Amino acid sequence: MATSERSRSAERIERDIETLSGSDYTLSDRAIQRYAYTDAYRRTLDYFARALKALGFEVYEDAVGTLVARNRPRGEPVFGIGSHCDSNRNGGRYDGTMGVATALEVCRLNEERGLKLPLQLISFLEEEGSGFGQMLLGSRIVAQRVTEDDLRERFRSLDDGRSFWEHAEAAGYDPSRWRECNQVLDGLTGWIEMHIEQARVLQDTGHRIGIVNAIAGYVHADVVVHGRGDHAGATPMDLRLDPTLPLAEGIAELERLARSAGQGTVGTVGEIDVEPGIINAIASRARISLDIRGPVDDAYRGVARDIAAFVENAAERRGMRAEYAERQTVAATPMDARIVGALDAAAAATGEPYMQMHSGAAHDTMCVADRVPTAMVFVPCRDGISHHPDELADPADSALAAEIILRALATLQ
Amino acid sequence: MATSERSRSAERIERDIETLSGSDYTLSDRAIQRYAYTDAYRRTLDYFARALKALGFEVYEDAVGTLVARNRPRGEPVFGIGSHCDSNRNGGRYDGTMGVATALEVCRLNEERGLKLPLQLISFLEEEGSGFGQMLLGSRIVAQRVTEDDLRERFRSLDDGRSFWEHAEAAGYDPSRWRECNQVLDGLTGWIEMHIEQARVLQDTGHRIGIVNAIAGYVHADVVVHGRGDHAGATPMDLRLDPTLPLAEGIAELERLARSAGQGTVGTVGEIDVEPGIINAIASRARISLDIRGPVDDAYRGVARDIAAFVENAAERRGMRAEYAERQTVAATPMDARIVGALDAAAAATGEPYMQMHSGAAHDTMCVADRVPTAMVFVPCRDGISHHPDELADPADSALAAEIILRALATLQ
Repeated sequence: MATSERSRSAERIERDIETLSGSDYTLSDRAIQRYAYTDAYRRTLDYFARALKALGFEVYEDAVGTLVARNRPRGEPVFGIGSHCDSNRNGGRYDGTMGVATALEVCRLNEERGLKLPLQLISFLEEEGSGFGQMLLGSRIVAQRVTEDDLRERFRSLDDGRSFWEHAEAAGYDPSRWRECNQVLDGLTGWIEMHIEQARVLQDTGHRIGIVNAIAGYVHADVVVHGRGDHAGATPMDLRLDPTLPLAEGIAELERLARSAGQGTVGTVGEIDVEPGIINAIASRARISLDIRGPVDDAYRGVARDIAAFVENAAERRGMRAEYAERQTVAATPMDARIVGALDAAAAATGEPYMQMHSGAAHDTMCVADRVPTAMVFVPCRDGISHHPDELADPADSALAAEIILRALATLQ
Repeated sequence: MATSERSRSAERIERDIETLSGSDYTLSDRAIQRYAYTDAYRRTLDYFARALKALGFEVYEDAVGTLVARNRPRGEPVFGIGSHCDSNRNGGRYDGTMGVATALEVCRLNEERGLKLPLQLISFLEEEGSGFGQMLLGSRIVAQRVTEDDLRERFRSLDDGRSFWEHAEAAGYDPSRWRECNQVLDGLTGWIEMHIEQARVLQDTGHRIGIVNAIAGYVHADVVVHGRGDHAGATPMDLRLDPTLPLAEGIAELERLARSAGQGTVGTVGEIDVEPGIINAIASRARISLDIRGPVDDAYRGVARDIAAFVENAAERRGMRAEYAERQTVAATPMDARIVGALDAAAAATGEPYMQMHSGAAHDTMCVADRVPTAMVFVPCRDGISHHPDELADPADSALAAEIILRALATLQ
């Protein structure tokens, strides 16, 4: 592919992104705010539907609003590409939407060049959870990772408290047929999602493309240490049960454990609570959150086990009690070696700097992977900033990703 | 003094405390809530005034409402005893009020026994700051540690936002004469305040009496570390600037420094803030508060200097920046060796278990000490619980304190 062709791709992707940043496509004038069953979201689906119909694709939406576009009749095998086009409430232009725009560009190039590759574009809804507080909701419905009770009762609009079900019906969908949403993946021979990286690895290592070979699993947990609230001035060091001390040791130890586990394992304390939380009182109780992830289940789960035991011991050594409680555990999702290999070869052929990497963040591809061989392609975003209006990615990298995906697809037929 | 006499003192003190816990003397039915210029506070002053007049004391209030009672004409030297009888808003029965009741008992015993010791009882207002958010307000006015602007404008009611000045006038006082409040200390040859300990040293070491030889000074400060907010899952350990790590090291180091400084030095992290404070985000910024105290200025100030340098280095070593900012520094207040010696001898003479100790908490005595030789006597409170309805102290210990104070005063004439 000539550089001029890649520039043309970049221009088209940029125009898509630019258009979809306009006031018709967001509920906020200071950020991209777009989620299921709003007018802004409806217009975004319509934008992609029009562009895909113009390429000769059959376009439809499933029972809850997943956008599907195919250049083969239903029933025939196709290769899936796509992402999501909702945003978080204070979002940027690129997260999700650039992946759908890049998939559209793959479809455009496929038609222009007469490659006739059998393609199916999917845009999942509610990846960000902005509508109903449920991340990956659209792809979880497709993967049937939800229950009818979730959709009818439990999942409720962050705006008005009404159920997902009511909102879907009001938008003209038929959520009672949600079990048929699994047909979206029928006949898929594979799936590739392009997404901005949302971190700084590609930028800081000078790569334009990341070929994702695994999506990290994670443990989310809390550790609470029960101490004894006392007067900070009047209680000698020897008579204290200060719960911040074993937790401080735990914060330092988590870093050591994550580094020593290696294999992409990371560990983070993002929340710290202290009660009562006043300058002149020894805390009666303190809590830290744990976010421990990695592409290798044994590695990050080992860190979670070790840090729980460490803080329990550290608290006990000081006469206190620690409680470790898991909020959620999700296993890592390995990507398909054949698709990863094809993408790697295609990236190498461009001569541009690329790397294989894992994704630390969750993506719809985790749900697709239940039934379909999958991989992902990352492009850099500036300083790793995402979920924020300052999010910035380069359409030229997207155009490069489209080219790599198209080359890989050709070899995967 | 016979045991029966001490029992009678305990009964009288208990009756005082019991009465002043009644519904006329608190604004809350679940706690003692009593502060300046409320009806509950007015009735409390009246209760003590009546009891002191009955003993032949001249009773008056100064320009802002400090209660003063003397058994000698103004101008003659007297020895000061007393405390405060306001409470914090969720207070117990003993903090402050038991000190005034014990001073009243000293006056009773003095009269009953015909000792004729020249005494002046003082009950300071607003020690707890419940009315206007200003701790030690009454004794600071007496010590002239406030400005007219503070009283007219800056110090405002927590209830209605009106100034201290307005409230004092509405209660019938003449705050424009606040500079004359310093006369409350005129002619005082010394001052002893009895107070509950508000910590667990006496209880845990099995002592009934603490002779206070110093009130701790302190440094209140904050340390902020500026990191870089990144995705907790997608940012490798090597690419992080996580501000919780140098702060965690600082929390552990503060304990080490305080222990190693000795001489009663303590150090506490009571507040921890993390931004944005969500489980899956590396913090962009984190803050800890520092409360570092002790009776020896060089010792606790050295710890404050060392911990500031430690966290600055720990942050720098990790490529971050730490900012140490002092909120307030108050020097330690040594007690008068002669009064402490007299109290020690008097305590020893009772044969009851007592110890010399410093006060980690602040007290009105700090302000009195500007002009008058002072000391304090502590009695235990259960489990160190204070500033809470569960506060509990034993009137028998108070009676013992009254006896010790009286004995000491006799030797100090």
